[in-house]
Amino acid sequence: MNLPDLYRHTLLDDVIPFWLRHGVDREYGGFLTALDRDGSVIDTDKSVWFQGRGAWTFATLCLKYGDRPEWRDAAAGAIDFLRRYCFSPSGKMYFTVTRDGRPLRMRRYVFSESFAAIACAAWHRLTGEEQARGDALRCFATYLQHSFTPGVMPAKVDPATRPMTGIGPLMIGIATAQELRRHLGDVIVEDRSMTGWIDFAIDRIERLFMKPQHRALMEVVAPDGGIIDHFDGRTLNPGHALECAWFLMEEGRHRGAARLIELGTTILDWMWERGWDQQFGGIFYFRDLRDLPVQEYWHDMKFWWPHNEAEIATLMAWKLTGRQKYADWHRLVHDWSFKHFPDPEHGEWYGYLHRDGSVSTRLKGNMWKGLFHLPRMLMVCGKLAE
Amino acid sequence: MNLPDLYRHTLLDDVIPFWLRHGVDREYGGFLTALDRDGSVIDTDKSVWFQGRGAWTFATLCLKYGDRPEWRDAAAGAIDFLRRYCFSPSGKMYFTVTRDGRPLRMRRYVFSESFAAIACAAWHRLTGEEQARGDALRCFATYLQHSFTPGVMPAKVDPATRPMTGIGPLMIGIATAQELRRHLGDVIVEDRSMTGWIDFAIDRIERLFMKPQHRALMEVVAPDGGIIDHFDGRTLNPGHALECAWFLMEEGRHRGAARLIELGTTILDWMWERGWDQQFGGIFYFRDLRDLPVQEYWHDMKFWWPHNEAEIATLMAWKLTGRQKYADWHRLVHDWSFKHFPDPEHGEWYGYLHRDGSVSTRLKGNMWKGLFHLPRMLMVCGKLAE
Repeated sequence: MNLPDLYRHTLLDDVIPFWLRHGVDREYGGFLTALDRDGSVIDTDKSVWFQGRGAWTFATLCLKYGDRPEWRDAAAGAIDFLRRYCFSPSGKMYFTVTRDGRPLRMRRYVFSESFAAIACAAWHRLTGEEQARGDALRCFATYLQHSFTPGVMPAKVDPATRPMTGIGPLMIGIATAQELRRHLGDVIVEDRSMTGWIDFAIDRIERLFMKPQHRALMEVVAPDGGIIDHFDGRTLNPGHALECAWFLMEEGRHRGAARLIELGTTILDWMWERGWDQQFGGIFYFRDLRDLPVQEYWHDMKFWWPHNEAEIATLMAWKLTGRQKYADWHRLVHDWSFKHFPDPEHGEWYGYLHRDGSVSTRLKGNMWKGLFHLPRMLMVCGKLAE
Repeated sequence: MNLPDLYRHTLLDDVIPFWLRHGVDREYGGFLTALDRDGSVIDTDKSVWFQGRGAWTFATLCLKYGDRPEWRDAAAGAIDFLRRYCFSPSGKMYFTVTRDGRPLRMRRYVFSESFAAIACAAWHRLTGEEQARGDALRCFATYLQHSFTPGVMPAKVDPATRPMTGIGPLMIGIATAQELRRHLGDVIVEDRSMTGWIDFAIDRIERLFMKPQHRALMEVVAPDGGIIDHFDGRTLNPGHALECAWFLMEEGRHRGAARLIELGTTILDWMWERGWDQQFGGIFYFRDLRDLPVQEYWHDMKFWWPHNEAEIATLMAWKLTGRQKYADWHRLVHDWSFKHFPDPEHGEWYGYLHRDGSVSTRLKGNMWKGLFHLPRMLMVCGKLAE
């Protein structure tokens, strides 16, 4: 099968049907993501992230592949569930709720808000519903306030002793603003346009997190960009960095800005070198800046999502620059992924492999794996491969 | 080498010298636990748990193997560091501090307090210092208040939606009260004697956490002992359960109470069956009550400490009951551990192996692995094997 057909077939005949069959809550709306290998639900608690991510995926499918009632219904159920059950009285969103929408966990982070924002933006584009437009803007405003107004989000580590800042809110800020701009136009939220927020984030990523002397994109730095020479400060996340790389390349493509494309391929070059496992193939989960041991136990495991992000980054880099090495890298990560992750018997992909590519758990989903990275990769790469 | 000699040699000629050489902070006092394979310090942040645990280990060595100035100095430095730097203004202890004692993280849990309590109790016994006696009682009082007064410790999951209670505070409460009773006598803290707190904990473990119909010791249950049929509620931790098992057997031995010994061996029987990896050997980190997939990524890895606890539990069960199967199990876990964990080149044990026993990280210590489970096992088993 040629690449465009393989991406389309995997998306429309395997992944999406698996989630439609097993992951849609027909009783309360929204998505159940804790699925065993064969799709049986093994935990009914709901990830708020995945209500937004799943709604975004189904609304985007309708926009890209043509409106289908079962896709639209799945998105509608999750949008409704988000509105009814996922906001705390303060307006901040929960992290998990029960199947019927009672609150379980509130976390410091505001990624629930970023995923709800892209869901509502795509839903507005699909349906024209005005409320969804307002919801998207409100969720992104909360995201920006908590992420970038000093002091709003409580720090994990005492900021008087060791102030730290992470790349996550900047990266996700870029991707969220890109989606809102795509569907709502270059609207203004919290005193900046979407393009303005993207510039804000790219500037910080470039100044604070990119380290040419180390050929590394950091995950966490001091507020002045200084390297924090402790476990957390040295821990690199190649899959996360490759995701960031393609957000920057995509922005370069959108603006026709070669500088941004180059910024993205620079990160790709650095972090492919650090992330690709020369011995067993696949992308490591964590690496240390100075090749010291990492504290996280799953550092050498192969998770599905870094492979999805690497597949997009390499294909996009090849398409935008024409450099052969990116085609070679794309082939490497594509072949490794399609060899090790899919479950031909029950469909969808395993999420968690050992370093050598053997399956660590038969889970198809949980509070961290649902309908997002894989279908996004299949949609983005499908378009790039055309 | 016969067993008693092997335990003694590993303790006194390998493990303790490794930590004395690499893990003692000669400048600020206390212990540095983030050590690379060869003992190089790769992170200077200090775990408050391990200031207490390390001080307990060195003070206990002096009590059991004879006073040595380098052991006493190491304990003294950590006791001093604990007193100076590890208490927040509220009296609650930090989770991590910098090398020079500035606060990094405060967590909800109070295990820093339990380990400080046993350190101070052993230090009092060794030196007769009155302040240490008071410190031990105060730390245990804080531990008890936060662990068992409803509402003092903020819940991770909304208690209005899903009230939960964990076995950890009960287990560690038993071990802490046993140490305090050993060194300070059956003193009263928070209106109960040490023996009273042990009875309190055993009663709850038996009524709420032991499930004969499932042959399982739960980690988390509803306040009435009901099984919470979600990822967290179903997740079993065999190493933790085997640790609990020998705390109960030890209490049975101390009191001459066959019922408590039987309670311990019952847990051992159930959780050995669930925890021992029939395919590769070794003790799994997590298992699911219904053999469903577990959400934690490192579920099938082999960590050093469950093996230490299993080695104690099996040897103690054999010693107390004379049943041959416990000798057989002890041989299995002993041989597997001593084959896979030790590093003959640089000394000490690796902490984190893949399921098949291959080394996952060359780390000898971090914020979770330091001087505690291994030396405790070598001391307890050394005595049992005599």
